[in-house]
Amino acid sequence: MKYYLGIDLGGTNVRVAKVDEEGNVKMIKDSPSYAKEGRDKVIRNIIEMIQTFDLSNVEGIGIGVPGPVDDKTNMMTMSTNLPGFENYPFAEIIEGATGKRVFVNNDANVAGVAEATVGAGKGCKIVYYFTQSTGIGGALVIDGHVVGGRKGYAGEIGNIVVKENAPKINHLALGAVENEASGTALGRKGKEILGEKGDSARKVFDLCRKGDPKAMEIIDQMAKDLGRMMGTIALICDPDCFVIGGGCSKSHDLYFDKLRTYMADYVHEGMKDVPIYLAQCQEPGVIGAAMLAREELK
Amino acid sequence: MKYYLGIDLGGTNVRVAKVDEEGNVKMIKDSPSYAKEGRDKVIRNIIEMIQTFDLSNVEGIGIGVPGPVDDKTNMMTMSTNLPGFENYPFAEIIEGATGKRVFVNNDANVAGVAEATVGAGKGCKIVYYFTQSTGIGGALVIDGHVVGGRKGYAGEIGNIVVKENAPKINHLALGAVENEASGTALGRKGKEILGEKGDSARKVFDLCRKGDPKAMEIIDQMAKDLGRMMGTIALICDPDCFVIGGGCSKSHDLYFDKLRTYMADYVHEGMKDVPIYLAQCQEPGVIGAAMLAREELK
Repeated sequence: MKYYLGIDLGGTNVRVAKVDEEGNVKMIKDSPSYAKEGRDKVIRNIIEMIQTFDLSNVEGIGIGVPGPVDDKTNMMTMSTNLPGFENYPFAEIIEGATGKRVFVNNDANVAGVAEATVGAGKGCKIVYYFTQSTGIGGALVIDGHVVGGRKGYAGEIGNIVVKENAPKINHLALGAVENEASGTALGRKGKEILGEKGDSARKVFDLCRKGDPKAMEIIDQMAKDLGRMMGTIALICDPDCFVIGGGCSKSHDLYFDKLRTYMADYVHEGMKDVPIYLAQCQEPGVIGAAMLAREELK
Repeated sequence: MKYYLGIDLGGTNVRVAKVDEEGNVKMIKDSPSYAKEGRDKVIRNIIEMIQTFDLSNVEGIGIGVPGPVDDKTNMMTMSTNLPGFENYPFAEIIEGATGKRVFVNNDANVAGVAEATVGAGKGCKIVYYFTQSTGIGGALVIDGHVVGGRKGYAGEIGNIVVKENAPKINHLALGAVENEASGTALGRKGKEILGEKGDSARKVFDLCRKGDPKAMEIIDQMAKDLGRMMGTIALICDPDCFVIGGGCSKSHDLYFDKLRTYMADYVHEGMKDVPIYLAQCQEPGVIGAAMLAREELK
């Protein structure tokens, strides 16, 4: 059996796991990422964590990071949560310290690799994974390899416009799906329409489940916007399946059926039966990072 | 030097060319496709045309067809211009008659392969090609291989919605970019706004070049809609370049700069400098079909 290290590096915490070639987590350790203490501290901490594992049977290391990565250089092209990591060769430093090949990709892409290789999309040639939580980010995974793009911006689907004459909310385009259908957006809309009792995505979903008509309308509109985004994605890559993860997807019973209905307005007849799966991996961050290394070393 | 046969099968004509491995057309023949006389006649005619070539140094055969193709079965999944070809194993029949491997894909995908392998996108890892003529169709080509999709619908970008509250024009979604920015759409809008003197895309481009303000407004709006479509595509696959072909692109000097400007409203800062190239191949249909075979046989 071959093993890989999967590292989920976030702005707050970092987790390192030893994962077998079938995606089973054998051992996992976590720690603060020390992002505020500077990149040297972050990297030193990761190397120390790696060195607590038996590396003798480890084939390679994968790392998921919170931001776009240029997979040709293994460097982040934009980094808001990890100061100093933009265009910094930290993978090379970790390779030097561990003697193992290191592969980096952004966290949504890494989760997509997890679902495509050992999760809900296992066995599908083209998997389109996206996460719907604080934000919305996606990954196009073909034959186990994620499509990174020219500068790692492939999968920045949160910026796809689905609503017209929408107000300026943040740096995203007017009417961007992330500002209409993310967990953050649900909380914002819930607060506007329902007040304090609906000021988070979780509260809106709970009210919807209890049959609150306003909450049901918010979720219906969210499904409409997300379905339109999915239709657009299907027209571009016609995936063998969609896999949806992230906090909102825990309430899949309240809107996955609606997604198919609304997506149908935007695609051709033969495309309407594309499977829509709920993400399966319990630890997509570390498992996906490990599978990223497995696929790249094939 | 290796050689391939490239076949461009349309609803009206069929062209067969012998192409070397670098994409140079060595010999080309054309004929009516006899679509109205039924599929057997169409296929018999193609086989007869193939047999007039010296096949001794031919590695394989590629065929471009007017409709989506399931690249796993080599069959068309939808066929309006070639009656009887839907889910019909014509590639197998041609393989049996010629003893050569046959690879089928839709015409836009085949043109994309031509531009990605020996055309304007040569050397780029991820090429997004699209044609803007009667309709709008695209192809995502990664490392020379076109992304076909679950049922061959990848690249059906003409159906991407870019305009809201748009009227129902045909089977496409309301506000689909093909009904706003194709050559057909330009002719329709030109006739509405300019009358007979602007009732075709060519006439609208000519008037625009002469400085007619209404024609310039039509082209500006077209660039806005097309730029929005390109931004959406970039968010999903972040291509190393866009390559644009089709009749409208002959007037690239009137709107390619605008495409970049308008696309910028829909993408992140680092994505705004993606190269936008004019298609280069003189014979994308037959050359792309030949390169399709070359890439699949690698």
